[in-house]
Amino acid sequence: MRVAYNEQMTELADLLGEMAGLAGVAMERATQSLLQADLSLAEQVIGEHDKITELSTICEERAFALLALQAPVAGDLRSVVSGIQIVADIDRMGALALHVAKIARRRHPNHVLPEEVNGYFAEMGRIAVSIGAAAREVLETRDPERAARLREEDEAMDDLHRHLFTVLMDREWKHGVAAAVDVTLLGRFYERFADHAVEVGRRVIFLVTGKLPDDTETAVKDADNLTSYPEL
Amino acid sequence: MRVAYNEQMTELADLLGEMAGLAGVAMERATQSLLQADLSLAEQVIGEHDKITELSTICEERAFALLALQAPVAGDLRSVVSGIQIVADIDRMGALALHVAKIARRRHPNHVLPEEVNGYFAEMGRIAVSIGAAAREVLETRDPERAARLREEDEAMDDLHRHLFTVLMDREWKHGVAAAVDVTLLGRFYERFADHAVEVGRRVIFLVTGKLPDDTETAVKDADNLTSYPEL
Repeated sequence: MRVAYNEQMTELADLLGEMAGLAGVAMERATQSLLQADLSLAEQVIGEHDKITELSTICEERAFALLALQAPVAGDLRSVVSGIQIVADIDRMGALALHVAKIARRRHPNHVLPEEVNGYFAEMGRIAVSIGAAAREVLETRDPERAARLREEDEAMDDLHRHLFTVLMDREWKHGVAAAVDVTLLGRFYERFADHAVEVGRRVIFLVTGKLPDDTETAVKDADNLTSYPEL
Repeated sequence: MRVAYNEQMTELADLLGEMAGLAGVAMERATQSLLQADLSLAEQVIGEHDKITELSTICEERAFALLALQAPVAGDLRSVVSGIQIVADIDRMGALALHVAKIARRRHPNHVLPEEVNGYFAEMGRIAVSIGAAAREVLETRDPERAARLREEDEAMDDLHRHLFTVLMDREWKHGVAAAVDVTLLGRFYERFADHAVEVGRRVIFLVTGKLPDDTETAVKDADNLTSYPEL
């Protein structure tokens, strides 16, 4: 019984790591499809999104079964409860990658991005992939210090997001309102992707230590990102 | 013991309903602050946001304590697990209302919205308040049919959101890129607010029936809203 139980706990953790991996790959491909106006990559992200949704359902079912059949306590209970919360964050990361791919597909064969902001999205994509991989690593290692460092990568994302708004709001923006709308939404998708990765890190810290880190230390306040876009 | 247990279950449900009520009030005030350029209302939403965050933490702690100390089974277990998931959705609804209020504050004493789109936001705000109240009602009554009907209100929100994009993308848009960026973000905040209310409804359906409704029946696919914004 105990062996089966441990196996189930490990399996849940593995599934979460696998989901995070898929979300990271999806964002990597979505970013390429965006930067290269690559329709087939966009289609691939869109076609494979169901895998993330399915894993999400499986994780929730496994976590529920563990609670129902094993009534775990202490650290194990924290693991399962955190797992239920983490599923929602990773699921959302996958949905955000899907959104990026859908915008790339919608504008094909045109490029979505004015060349002027390509560099921003190349870098935001790089950070998204990196923070996604870090979230996966944290799920596997359960290293609370590594989890806390996710915030640093997110800060780099926030900086880029702020700069992007500066470019958008500049009187020199010559690409019209439609491109500005796309860039606004895309910027928000990348920023939220990183926020959810940070949230995964916070949940892992809770899972290991029994305490959620203070928001001011390691959490990302989405609200703060927003207030920081430049005053007009 | 059983009495205390039932009390704790009821208390958790009441706290969730209270949170949903606060999120609805926050969105109502945020919308007024946006439409009237009312700084004091915006400040009130911003100042009172911590209440929602605090309730969120309390709900999570209560749910965790219930699992740890009472090891509920069957329907009760579903209630607690759903409660943990619902907290995250309502917390996010509060954050989205906060974002609206912050944009209103940032642009004060100017109005954020060009007069042309005031009507859209008045109506999106009305639907947000209504769907927020419905989510609260569903949490209190646990009526799965009422929960399923949340989707209808969300469809009205999606329609408005689509129309809003038509206005934005129109060559007649004369309000510049900065206003378009604000309107894009605000539109998204209202639409996501309604999505989270629908998700609360889905969780209540699970809690009562033991099954999550089919996505195609009652869930809101955020992705679908996005793809439906007009082609250029």
